[in-house]
Amino acid sequence: MERLSGELAQMCAASETAMSDATEALLDVSLAAAERAIGSTDELDRAAAEWERSAFSLLALQSPVAYDLRFVVGGLRVVADVQRMGGLAVHVAKITRLRHPDHVVPEVVRDLFTRMGEVADRQAAESVETLRQLDPERAEALLHGDEAMDELHAELLATAQSEEWRYGVQAAVDLTLLGRFYERFCDHTVEIGRRVIWIETGVAPS
Amino acid sequence: MERLSGELAQMCAASETAMSDATEALLDVSLAAAERAIGSTDELDRAAAEWERSAFSLLALQSPVAYDLRFVVGGLRVVADVQRMGGLAVHVAKITRLRHPDHVVPEVVRDLFTRMGEVADRQAAESVETLRQLDPERAEALLHGDEAMDELHAELLATAQSEEWRYGVQAAVDLTLLGRFYERFCDHTVEIGRRVIWIETGVAPS
Repeated sequence: MERLSGELAQMCAASETAMSDATEALLDVSLAAAERAIGSTDELDRAAAEWERSAFSLLALQSPVAYDLRFVVGGLRVVADVQRMGGLAVHVAKITRLRHPDHVVPEVVRDLFTRMGEVADRQAAESVETLRQLDPERAEALLHGDEAMDELHAELLATAQSEEWRYGVQAAVDLTLLGRFYERFCDHTVEIGRRVIWIETGVAPS
Repeated sequence: MERLSGELAQMCAASETAMSDATEALLDVSLAAAERAIGSTDELDRAAAEWERSAFSLLALQSPVAYDLRFVVGGLRVVADVQRMGGLAVHVAKITRLRHPDHVVPEVVRDLFTRMGEVADRQAAESVETLRQLDPERAEALLHGDEAMDELHAELLATAQSEEWRYGVQAAVDLTLLGRFYERFCDHTVEIGRRVIWIETGVAPS
């Protein structure tokens, strides 16, 4: 069980690294960073499938109840969240690669994307610690981490849709997708927080 | 167990209806249809939470193994997919409501969205039947249903990003998000197919 908990944290750390690579790729127009993010997905998918198999064996052979059962059932959802976070990092990196050597992020929203990257990174790092410690108080803090991201995302859409937008439709479409990927990444960290609270307390946060 | 399987199909049918309402809202600029889609989410979330509780009780009290355990574990993932499909329908409906009484979909991509709505509806209807019958052959057919959607989605992005785009940035941003919501909706039906195959055969499709 301890091994399974450590593995969840490890997978989450891998998706944190993937997103931070993807953000670096985006802001520094770095193909190397993009390839790192894209290349990380196979290992994450493999680890997630392996985790599911272990969880299934544990359910079949040990018939856990109470806390242990919540950990396994909750963990199955967390694995899905973490895997999806890695997938979203890959989506971000692929847009950078598609447009390379052009910049995807115009100067006017560079600061916004820097902050979106920071929020994503902070939430992912907090998710890793929350999973490592299975700490419901840390998990509680995760629940509100998406608010900062939602504000940044709304600001991004408003900027791209404003009369003053000078960067054309292609850039606006790319940025809309990117914004959505960061927002969803963050949503999954909130879900991880909710699941850890449920595992630890038996009560789903409303 | 039969009850749980029927409930999965029922929830999936609810998300199918929500998406078909959302598509109607979008194409007919119908606020009533948008409100129907948006209003359906509470019941779906309640049913999904209830399903999870039943599955947890079943694991705790009956310690199922083999097929029965696969059904419950796979079902927990299917519930998440179905719930998310409902959420995506709500996102589509909310864009319609936000822009009402303006059209969101310009004439040039109306046919594209009609077809995206049809693919989403067909995949969702097939998912309902697959869940009702737990039929791995039906599930197999679901696996390729996202290809048609991916093509339509690529065509939409290419249209919005082309030199000939005459509908401005705001419309392009809205359509980018809408396209993404339809594409993700379809991805979840593929996931349902994969899960049903795993439940029935014990082997995850590659």
